[in-house]
This record gives sequence, structure tokens and C-alpha cells, in this order.
Amino acid sequence: MKVAFQGEAGAFSEEAVFALYPDAVCLARSSFESVFESVDDGSADRGVIPIDNSLHGSVHENYDLLRVHELRIVSEIQLRIRHNLLAIASAGLEDIRAVCSHPQALGQCRTFLKDNCSDAEIVAVYDTAGAARMVAERSDPSHAAIASARAGKKYGLITLAEGIERNHQNYTRFLSLARAEDASRALSSADDQVPLKTSIVYAQRENMPGSLFKSLAVFALRDIDLYKIESRPLVGSPGKYLFYLDHSGSSNDEPVKNALQHLEEVAATVTVLGTYPVGRTLD
Amino acid sequence: MKVAFQGEAGAFSEEAVFALYPDAVCLARSSFESVFESVDDGSADRGVIPIDNSLHGSVHENYDLLRVHELRIVSEIQLRIRHNLLAIASAGLEDIRAVCSHPQALGQCRTFLKDNCSDAEIVAVYDTAGAARMVAERSDPSHAAIASARAGKKYGLITLAEGIERNHQNYTRFLSLARAEDASRALSSADDQVPLKTSIVYAQRENMPGSLFKSLAVFALRDIDLYKIESRPLVGSPGKYLFYLDHSGSSNDEPVKNALQHLEEVAATVTVLGTYPVGRTLD
Repeated sequence: MKVAFQGEAGAFSEEAVFALYPDAVCLARSSFESVFESVDDGSADRGVIPIDNSLHGSVHENYDLLRVHELRIVSEIQLRIRHNLLAIASAGLEDIRAVCSHPQALGQCRTFLKDNCSDAEIVAVYDTAGAARMVAERSDPSHAAIASARAGKKYGLITLAEGIERNHQNYTRFLSLARAEDASRALSSADDQVPLKTSIVYAQRENMPGSLFKSLAVFALRDIDLYKIESRPLVGSPGKYLFYLDHSGSSNDEPVKNALQHLEEVAATVTVLGTYPVGRTLD
Repeated sequence: MKVAFQGEAGAFSEEAVFALYPDAVCLARSSFESVFESVDDGSADRGVIPIDNSLHGSVHENYDLLRVHELRIVSEIQLRIRHNLLAIASAGLEDIRAVCSHPQALGQCRTFLKDNCSDAEIVAVYDTAGAARMVAERSDPSHAAIASARAGKKYGLITLAEGIERNHQNYTRFLSLARAEDASRALSSADDQVPLKTSIVYAQRENMPGSLFKSLAVFALRDIDLYKIESRPLVGSPGKYLFYLDHSGSSNDEPVKNALQHLEEVAATVTVLGTYPVGRTLD
């Protein structure tokens, strides 16, 4: 199984790939868009992308890519994001004069950095694992990276401080994507002990008031549970919204089929992103 | 009117302050929490904070602070976020070897940086305006900042490239907060030509299915429009959610009072964050 992800070896996305596919051959890609393209053109069997985070909310960029590409969600997993301060073996915390990482990780560890490395220069790089690789390559004891334990191990770095993110309730949900025909195959061979969920995106037909309520009635009237609902205002179109919705059940089930057909009556557009087993959380 | 904001002079938040309060005396604060504290302890009359962005979604940290502090929302404004590459007057785009800015701005301008400054070191700092100040202070033509036109003007920098963010549909909604007694006064003197909206946060009583639908019925049955709905999973409590909801009308109106009383019956906790006039959008 060839699986594309954004970032480089040691990234959190790579951790999600191995949690989902222990035997995966990982393909590192520089952008989310190229992850989608790799699955589109068949150079990868699956693409793994982050879709929401407990502190930072939904990754709208990936929702937009899901709406444009014809890929389907085949699985999900929730991963705890734990940041560590990593450096080469001869370094100590008091030596550190430069800290590099991904902008979001730097933001999450801001309090630790202020308290412990207030003189250090803070350098943003394109991913946490890349920061760890750079620190290993430079082999300078005054440089540190903020990255996962996995990245530290991969690049032979020691951990100067562990779990330095300000808020420990930091979880990212990742989705695995496949081409439509592979997704149907994956779904038909899924463990039938695990409940299924379905993700959709829809735009309302009229203004929000009655139409949101009607669109949720479609599910409530059929006892279909919701896992996520989010309105996203369409910039430039006041009063117009997109909705992200995750609900229980498979789009092959009769009640869900009926609900989605009913939703078409009250929504302007409905895009089914996929049906997949409810995922695990890795702490 | 003394108004606290997070960042330093020239920040987008400061622009929001002046758009809301043209005669404001601005108080720059280093964190969102200290903005809240400044209003709490009376050293500021208002605090202005970002609450959601069209690309990055809700600022959960500020929702959490709103739930803990006893402040009320008194107004809102939506601001287009436009990033510029700024440097000292003698610099040219080809000279740039280091670019500094806030992590989120660096992320939004990543494509421009790759295409135009691929050799430059990318340095993260705590805000865009601070980056502009640093570039002005260093007076080195190889250094550039990504910040607003306002910050460039403030620190006497020239614009090497304008509107360099990848997605131009980039808007941030800011809220102005006040102590409860000041908020009531502001509301009673509000222009009665502008429609009012109310923001609330609530937690459901049971699991999501029926309870979300019931909680929205509370508004739909009274023809109260919704501007925003977002479920936020409570980490560590599977199946439990917080909801962010903005609806039309004032919490002093009879139908809204009845709706909120009805919501108490179906929700575990309801927090009213404030009633305020629907805000403008500045392009």
C-alpha cells in the first residue's frame, strides 16, 4: 500500500499513516494538493490528510480540496499531538540559541519558549520533521527543533523537554482518501463490528434560518446521529453558508439514502465525501 | 475610550480597534488573556479580539476565555487580511535573504515566498507588526517583514509586493468586549436601525443526535435566524460537544428570552456572550 502524506519523514501525518497502515510505503509530498494529485493519478493508493484539530478547528483548505477532487474518505484516526524540544546529543537546554519548527507548533509551545528560551531566535520552517532533520544535519548544540518523539528518534536527536505544548488537549483527526472504486472495495471489506459514519458537505438553498433546521430534520426524523456540524460563511456572499456534517451510518443504507435524497430537496448542492468506520484515538 | 488588543502598534487587531473606535487610545497587550484581564480590572474600557477567520475557522482559545471571564460582546467587525512584503527604502525584492512575520501570515504567503524568496530564511515572530518594527530597527536591506500596509506606514517601510497571501478570501471577524454594566449601556444606546445578533455557547445534555436538533428547534420554532453554528468535540469526553451559535435578535427581546429559557431545558449549560449590532465588513 503506497500512502501519500504532506510533510517529510517523522511528520505527525506519517505517524497517522502507520497507525492506519502498519505496512505502508510512505510517499512524502510538499503540499496537501499534491497528496490529492498523487491519489488521483494512481501514484499513491491512499492519501492521508489532517481534517480538524481540537484547538485550531477544521482545515478548510482540505475541505475545499475534497470538494474539487473525486476522492472518497476510507478511514479516520485521531492522534494526540505532543511536542518535544529536540537537539543533538551534546546539547543542553541552557545552550539553545535558535529553535525551529512549523509555525503552528511554535505557537503551541510559545509559553514554554518564553519561559525557557527567551533569548533564542525562533525560526519557522515548513514542517516539524524537517526542523528535526535540519538540527541533526547542522549538528550545532545551540540549535533545537520542536517536533514529535518519532522525528527525534528518526534523526538521532535527544529530548531536552517533553510535552512542551501549552494545551495538552491537542488532537488532530486525520482522514485517509482513496479513488472511488478503491473506496467501495475498502467499505465492502470493512469490519462489520465497527460502526460506520459518513461525511458530507452541503450548501443551503435559501438563507440560513429555516433551511439549516430543515436540513438537520432530514437526519433527526430518521434517527441518524450527528458527529459534527459546522457552518462556514461563504466570503463575498453574505448570508450564504457551506455546512460540514458527519453523521452515523453508511450512504448505502436505506435510511441514509433517503435522508440524502431528502437533503437534496432542501439544499442547493450536496457532496458525499465518503462512508468509513468510526476511527480510534491514539493518546 | 481605552481599548486593549493583542499585538503591537500596526497589528491587524489595532486596525479593527480604530475601525470600531476612531478616537481610541490603544493598549497593546502580549496575549489574549491579558486583553481580557485589562478589561476585567478596568485598565481598559474595551478589549478587541479575533474570533474567527474565513480560512482558519474559529479561535477556540478566545471562545474558552469568553466562557471563563464575565465580559460581554458589544460589537463586531469583519476585516480583510491583506499581507505585504515590507522592507527599508534601499531594499529590492532580489536582496531579501530573511523574511520574518507571524507564523500564520508566513503560512498564508508560503507560495509567494517559495516563488520569490526561496533562499530566504523564514523567521517566525509573535506578530506581524512586530516583524515590521524589527525590520525598520535593523535597517538591513536583506531583511523583509510580512505585515499590513498600516504597519509598513507606521514603521516607514516600503512595499516590495502587495497582497501576497495565497487566498485573497481572507477575512477575520473581531469582537469588542466590555464589562457587563458597560455592555448594557452600549446596547441601550445602539443605533436601532442596525439589526442585533446574540452569541451563545452551550453544551448538550445527552449525546448529540436528538439534542442538537432540539436545541435548534428552540430558535426555528420562534423564527429566530442563525448566523453561525459549530460543534466542537470535547476532548476526553467522546460524544460530548460544545456548540457555538450566533442568532438574530437581542437577549432582551421576548422571543429570544423564551428561546434561551427553552434551550436551558435541553442543554446542560448555556452561556450568553452578548447582544450587539450586526457588524460591517471592511475590504
